[in-house]
Amino acid sequence: MNLRLPKKDKFIGIPPGTPVFKGEKKTDKVELKLIEYSENFYSEKEIQISELLELLKDSAKIKWLIVTGLHDTKIIGQIGEIFNIKHLIIEDILDTGHHPKIDFFDNFIFIASKIIDYNETSKTVHSEHLSLLFGKDYVVTFLEQQSDYFNKIKERIKNNSGRITKLGPDYLNYTVLDYVIDNYYLLIDKLGYDIDKLEEAVASNPTKEQLSLIHKFKGVLIYINRLVKPLRDIVRRLETEKSPLIKETTYEYLRDLYDHVVQVTDMFESYRETLTVILDIFITSQGNKLNEVMKVLTIIATIFIPITFIAGVYGMNFRFMPELGWHYGYYLALFLMIAIVIGMLIYFKRKKWF
Amino acid sequence: MNLRLPKKDKFIGIPPGTPVFKGEKKTDKVELKLIEYSENFYSEKEIQISELLELLKDSAKIKWLIVTGLHDTKIIGQIGEIFNIKHLIIEDILDTGHHPKIDFFDNFIFIASKIIDYNETSKTVHSEHLSLLFGKDYVVTFLEQQSDYFNKIKERIKNNSGRITKLGPDYLNYTVLDYVIDNYYLLIDKLGYDIDKLEEAVASNPTKEQLSLIHKFKGVLIYINRLVKPLRDIVRRLETEKSPLIKETTYEYLRDLYDHVVQVTDMFESYRETLTVILDIFITSQGNKLNEVMKVLTIIATIFIPITFIAGVYGMNFRFMPELGWHYGYYLALFLMIAIVIGMLIYFKRKKWF
Amino acid sequence: MNLRLPKKDKFIGIPPGTPVFKGEKKTDKVELKLIEYSENFYSEKEIQISELLELLKDSAKIKWLIVTGLHDTKIIGQIGEIFNIKHLIIEDILDTGHHPKIDFFDNFIFIASKIIDYNETSKTVHSEHLSLLFGKDYVVTFLEQQSDYFNKIKERIKNNSGRITKLGPDYLNYTVLDYVIDNYYLLIDKLGYDIDKLEEAVASNPTKEQLSLIHKFKGVLIYINRLVKPLRDIVRRLETEKSPLIKETTYEYLRDLYDHVVQVTDMFESYRETLTVILDIFITSQGNKLNEVMKVLTIIATIFIPITFIAGVYGMNFRFMPELGWHYGYYLALFLMIAIVIGMLIYFKRKKWF
Amino acid sequence: MNLRLPKKDKFIGIPPGTPVFKGEKKTDKVELKLIEYSENFYSEKEIQISELLELLKDSAKIKWLIVTGLHDTKIIGQIGEIFNIKHLIIEDILDTGHHPKIDFFDNFIFIASKIIDYNETSKTVHSEHLSLLFGKDYVVTFLEQQSDYFNKIKERIKNNSGRITKLGPDYLNYTVLDYVIDNYYLLIDKLGYDIDKLEEAVASNPTKEQLSLIHKFKGVLIYINRLVKPLRDIVRRLETEKSPLIKETTYEYLRDLYDHVVQVTDMFESYRETLTVILDIFITSQGNKLNEVMKVLTIIATIFIPITFIAGVYGMNFRFMPELGWHYGYYLALFLMIAIVIGMLIYFKRKKWF
Amino acid sequence: MNLRLPKKDKFIGIPPGTPVFKGEKKTDKVELKLIEYSENFYSEKEIQISELLELLKDSAKIKWLIVTGLHDTKIIGQIGEIFNIKHLIIEDILDTGHHPKIDFFDNFIFIASKIIDYNETSKTVHSEHLSLLFGKDYVVTFLEQQSDYFNKIKERIKNNSGRITKLGPDYLNYTVLDYVIDNYYLLIDKLGYDIDKLEEAVASNPTKEQLSLIHKFKGVLIYINRLVKPLRDIVRRLETEKSPLIKETTYEYLRDLYDHVVQVTDMFESYRETLTVILDIFITSQGNKLNEVMKVLTIIATIFIPITFIAGVYGMNFRFMPELGWHYGYYLALFLMIAIVIGMLIYFKRKKWF
Repeated sequence: MNLRLPKKDKFIGIPPGTPVFKGEKKTDKVELKLIEYSENFYSEKEIQISELLELLKDSAKIKWLIVTGLHDTKIIGQIGEIFNIKHLIIEDILDTGHHPKIDFFDNFIFIASKIIDYNETSKTVHSEHLSLLFGKDYVVTFLEQQSDYFNKIKERIKNNSGRITKLGPDYLNYTVLDYVIDNYYLLIDKLGYDIDKLEEAVASNPTKEQLSLIHKFKGVLIYINRLVKPLRDIVRRLETEKSPLIKETTYEYLRDLYDHVVQVTDMFESYRETLTVILDIFITSQGNKLNEVMKVLTIIATIFIPITFIAGVYGMNFRFMPELGWHYGYYLALFLMIAIVIGMLIYFKRKKWF
Repeated sequence: MNLRLPKKDKFIGIPPGTPVFKGEKKTDKVELKLIEYSENFYSEKEIQISELLELLKDSAKIKWLIVTGLHDTKIIGQIGEIFNIKHLIIEDILDTGHHPKIDFFDNFIFIASKIIDYNETSKTVHSEHLSLLFGKDYVVTFLEQQSDYFNKIKERIKNNSGRITKLGPDYLNYTVLDYVIDNYYLLIDKLGYDIDKLEEAVASNPTKEQLSLIHKFKGVLIYINRLVKPLRDIVRRLETEKSPLIKETTYEYLRDLYDHVVQVTDMFESYRETLTVILDIFITSQGNKLNEVMKVLTIIATIFIPITFIAGVYGMNFRFMPELGWHYGYYLALFLMIAIVIGMLIYFKRKKWF
Repeated sequence: MNLRLPKKDKFIGIPPGTPVFKGEKKTDKVELKLIEYSENFYSEKEIQISELLELLKDSAKIKWLIVTGLHDTKIIGQIGEIFNIKHLIIEDILDTGHHPKIDFFDNFIFIASKIIDYNETSKTVHSEHLSLLFGKDYVVTFLEQQSDYFNKIKERIKNNSGRITKLGPDYLNYTVLDYVIDNYYLLIDKLGYDIDKLEEAVASNPTKEQLSLIHKFKGVLIYINRLVKPLRDIVRRLETEKSPLIKETTYEYLRDLYDHVVQVTDMFESYRETLTVILDIFITSQGNKLNEVMKVLTIIATIFIPITFIAGVYGMNFRFMPELGWHYGYYLALFLMIAIVIGMLIYFKRKKWF
Repeated sequence: MNLRLPKKDKFIGIPPGTPVFKGEKKTDKVELKLIEYSENFYSEKEIQISELLELLKDSAKIKWLIVTGLHDTKIIGQIGEIFNIKHLIIEDILDTGHHPKIDFFDNFIFIASKIIDYNETSKTVHSEHLSLLFGKDYVVTFLEQQSDYFNKIKERIKNNSGRITKLGPDYLNYTVLDYVIDNYYLLIDKLGYDIDKLEEAVASNPTKEQLSLIHKFKGVLIYINRLVKPLRDIVRRLETEKSPLIKETTYEYLRDLYDHVVQVTDMFESYRETLTVILDIFITSQGNKLNEVMKVLTIIATIFIPITFIAGVYGMNFRFMPELGWHYGYYLALFLMIAIVIGMLIYFKRKKWF
Repeated sequence: MNLRLPKKDKFIGIPPGTPVFKGEKKTDKVELKLIEYSENFYSEKEIQISELLELLKDSAKIKWLIVTGLHDTKIIGQIGEIFNIKHLIIEDILDTGHHPKIDFFDNFIFIASKIIDYNETSKTVHSEHLSLLFGKDYVVTFLEQQSDYFNKIKERIKNNSGRITKLGPDYLNYTVLDYVIDNYYLLIDKLGYDIDKLEEAVASNPTKEQLSLIHKFKGVLIYINRLVKPLRDIVRRLETEKSPLIKETTYEYLRDLYDHVVQVTDMFESYRETLTVILDIFITSQGNKLNEVMKVLTIIATIFIPITFIAGVYGMNFRFMPELGWHYGYYLALFLMIAIVIGMLIYFKRKKWF
């Protein structure tokens, strides 16, 4: 998990607004896909940056530009110029460690967000920076790597299912955010399943591996928490701050979306509490186990130490030890030992040690 | 406890507002019961979806439609059309994992809530999704399974007890919410009884079973907390946001209702704190027990180890060991051992170990 | 402590506003005492419910009705009718588990509160439900049991001390609340004394009894906290929400009262923190004690185990063991043992184990 | 530390506003000192209560009355009459356990506060109740005991240093509060030094004395916290609530004062966190120490127990034990023992136990 | 870390606004550097305090005065007079322990802040007091020691890179704050790297050194937290409180800056949570280790104690012990011992102890 920001060392002192890619390069080339659609039209093609300006002119269609790969600052810069994006926003698009935020401008609304992915085998979370801006007749999404992330939405547009083709870019923008949040649901689902399984396991037999799992999940939840909280804020501001770029009819969907984000954050909160409970169980189970081990040791030791002592006494080599000469001395000693053992057992029974 | 939401995996990418049942199917068929009443009239009958529209026309009576079973999305969809319910709300009715919420519309007020049930033997909580909407002359309640849940209210209407038949659907709606919250009280009552019993038990003798109970109750309270907090919000909004669908006289009841929810949440809060205290007691009792066990071991060991050593010394086979030849050597050795034991006992007494 | 509410099981489904006594019956009969006073007049008598209406007519005097015992719902209902109290408020008076609240009406102000009592020997808190309403020329107080609770106030009225007879029922109401809060002070005083004593004891020698005391006090503070917080709210609302029933001159007293409640809640908050500190001390003291015990065991064991081994070696019966035949063999063995003991002691000294 | 309020037992039921001294008597007589000053004038004298009224008439000078000793309620009452102080405020002046507060009146502003003093040897805090009121041309301060507390301020007035003589009683009032808060700084300074020293000590070797120090400091911080928070509130209200008694030019000083209080509360907050960290270190160090002790015990025991057993075997007295007759039997046994010891040491080395 | 404020002892009672240097003297002389620049001009020179007034007159250029070293109160006082700075602000500049704050005046805006530096080898944080004020055509920065701290910004001005020379002192001020915050990023980067490394190490093998590191980092984060929170406040107020000294176009940069501070505080918050997790891991790992050690001890002890006892029994010297004479007595005894060992091993296997 890149909880840490990308190394900023080399960027200190650079004038603000300079387009610099701050992140790991995850893909080789920058890919630009342009989807154009209206109620009866759908086209999707890979384009060159040079064609872009021309293609955007057709105002009858909604244009969705999907940019994958962020390391080529020149191309991103050119896109910025075409859409009239300020330098500081370009900087945010390129900074893959930037936290989620929203900014309202006259010509578009800008949203920085994260898409996250939970790996069920390694129990880690992978996140990817997603920037999104939508204007009067276009939506632009910037992704680091996963060029096929939005395939399901594309299909819905293609198949003309639901209302997506009848409504504008603000609805497409809502659809994208809804899709992102649905994926958070999915993540909770998987993570929750793992946490619930862990909870049951810990209660029965605490192991070192579980401890490291608890700790891993705690890290994951700290990480996600940092992403989900600003996301909730973004949706709330989208819903409450009126913008001419959002149609009246879209607000009902945004309200519903806000409902979903709240539910997601509530779920995460619940799982954080659950993890704390699990750690508590772990620690007390550990204590229980120590107690059990110590009891076994104590029982064995306290039973045998006294009778071993008796054996030691009659193993002494003094010349004058009357008991040694008694005919039943040996049996008396054995009897004494047995009596001590029985006494001890009764004592432990009363203490409820077993 | 279905802390986790129903698996959303298959629902990702579906256009928002599509009516899909998200939950477990708990009953076989969808049952529609229509209750019609006025001050001198009461009728209750099972109806078909096809009859519904016709039956709603009689505006002189208050109509209460109880829908049990949510898996048949077609029927729910038809009900939605009859009552003019938006798709997004239909989605909320069908999503049994949805958190409690309230939405104000022109024609009706929609409330999503949960009814909960505490099983005293398994110490678990079972919850059921309850949706509720009320308009000018009707109330519709959607339940997953328990078709007889509202029997006590029905009886009150039938017997014309209290003011219920004299007042409108907003009062019926209040009665239903009041009934739901009364059941939360009942739950606290039972849960509180179990927690109080646990508290006493833990203080006297901590066991593994108690630990798992503490942990179970913590889970239950985390779960309930997630339901009760939005419920309080719902009642507060009902009381404060004026709606033409609620008569002036009903607000006094809603204020009282709000009082009750606050009391319920306060009780839950108290029990959460109590559980934390119980866990603290458990851990310190555990520590106490370990200390006790260790003391027994240490007393036995420190008493016998030195005297066993003496026995060992006089068990050595050296040819020249003057003590062995002394006439009272054996008695001197025994005396030395007894002296050591007494010394040790005095030492422990001073240390207040017993 | 009745942290739990009275069993609500049987009350579920009852129409709201139905007067039902919810609590334990603590006294045999319902007692009505009417105190009438003006600047030069004082009378106190036990009356019957039938006389009440007639007696209230004299508007020149301030009337204070003290009702003790709540189980006779008929009498309480009649009082409700005479003073024109709504059914929902009657319900609150009868529900001894109801949390503190305030309600403003046109003809009177209603306050539900608790009087509490700390038992210094059993270290428990006993609470009693106190309802209070005051109008233009009367105050009514409802108590569960302690009919002599307000004797000190009565004496002040009788003796005409202070301003009480010169001012109206709002001042009497203030006096009653002030008296209730003064009793909370007293409770803190006693509780604080016990907690301070406990704090000192825990630091020196932690015992099982202290642990159960800590836990008892935690429970008491959780319980009181639930009562004091709404009480502060009540006084704040009395002070800030203007009512024609409260004279301008009384507000200064209410401000002072609010000051006192804040101080009381602050004190409770402090004691909660103190208890957390005490528990921390307890746990660390426990750990210290375990360490001490383990050190004793370890010192004894590590000193004697090696030398016992040497004794064991020379206790072996091999035919050919040269050392056994040496003239000073025995003394050499003893010397070796002493050397080991001294070495061990130096080692422990360096480790600062004693 | 008088965390507890003075015993209120005897004061319950007393009419509010009755002047009663609630506190310990700390000084024998009540001392009244009157300081009069203007830009070119300074006089300081001890006066009698009977002279006071006369002396206040000279409106050209600023008058500062310092009252030391609060137990003589009659004198305090007379002062109250002279300055026209309401009974409830007199009560606050006399109640040495009263928390800090501010009250705005037409003729003066009243502030109750505490001066605190940290004893570096006993590590305890001593507090003294300080009441302060200032009007158009006078300041009155009430102290319990330390009649020389304000000497430094007096000197500044006498020496005409700074702006103090040029500005009015509101500035003097500010100077007094500033002086009080400066003393809180001093306290943090000393306390912080002790906490930092403790932090270093705990990390190296945790002892019982440190534990009791941690606990003492926690108590001190809980106590101070209760005083500083309302103090911050007082200064904030002084700064924000406009009063004709405070000149426009003084607000800039009050803003600066508020800055200082915030800094003081921040420091205390930091030290509270630091103490929590110290306790954590203490507990984990304790755990470390236990682990270390247990390791020593385990190493010694596991090495010697098996070889002692071997010695025991060859100490048995069976008639037929072939090994006993072997010529090198003894050396073989010794060799076996040494092999076991080496094996154990390798095992522990691998486990990284030493 | 100077968590503690500089010793205030000697400063108590000094009239407010008196310029006194409160801090450690870190540099020998006070250095004044004046940078003058416009779009085509850059000059930097060390100046004397006497030349300053004259040099400020050229209003065509932006003047940046960098003052390094604060102990010479006379020089600072003179600068204060030249720029017309109130005495209370001069006091804040000289008090190196002052917390970050902002103050708006008519002629300039004053900001007190800290620059911090993380030492990767000693794992400590070093902070330096930075005061900053900017007016219509000048910026003044006061530093304790690091005269070359702003070199990178100077270079940008010199090289005319970015917009810095085209915009006014408000932009320069923003640049300076941005630079300070960028250095906080760098600090997180380094600190985060160390914390992540620690996290991994703790999980595998907890040591005393790690504990002291955890504790050191906790201290560092408590310290930084106290600096970053007011810094966020400063930037928020700069952004929201309109001042004629800040041009409309600069607000967009300030908004971006605020974004950055929020991100920085979020990161610190995350690391605080992470450290808590690390401590939890440490404690539970410690518990695990203790359990492991105890298991080894218990296994060894419980296996050997019983068989050593048997050896002891047959080492007794009773005259009549039939077993001793049996021909296979020795082998039977050995067999019995082996049987016990196997039995024990099976028992431990079942208990899953190894």
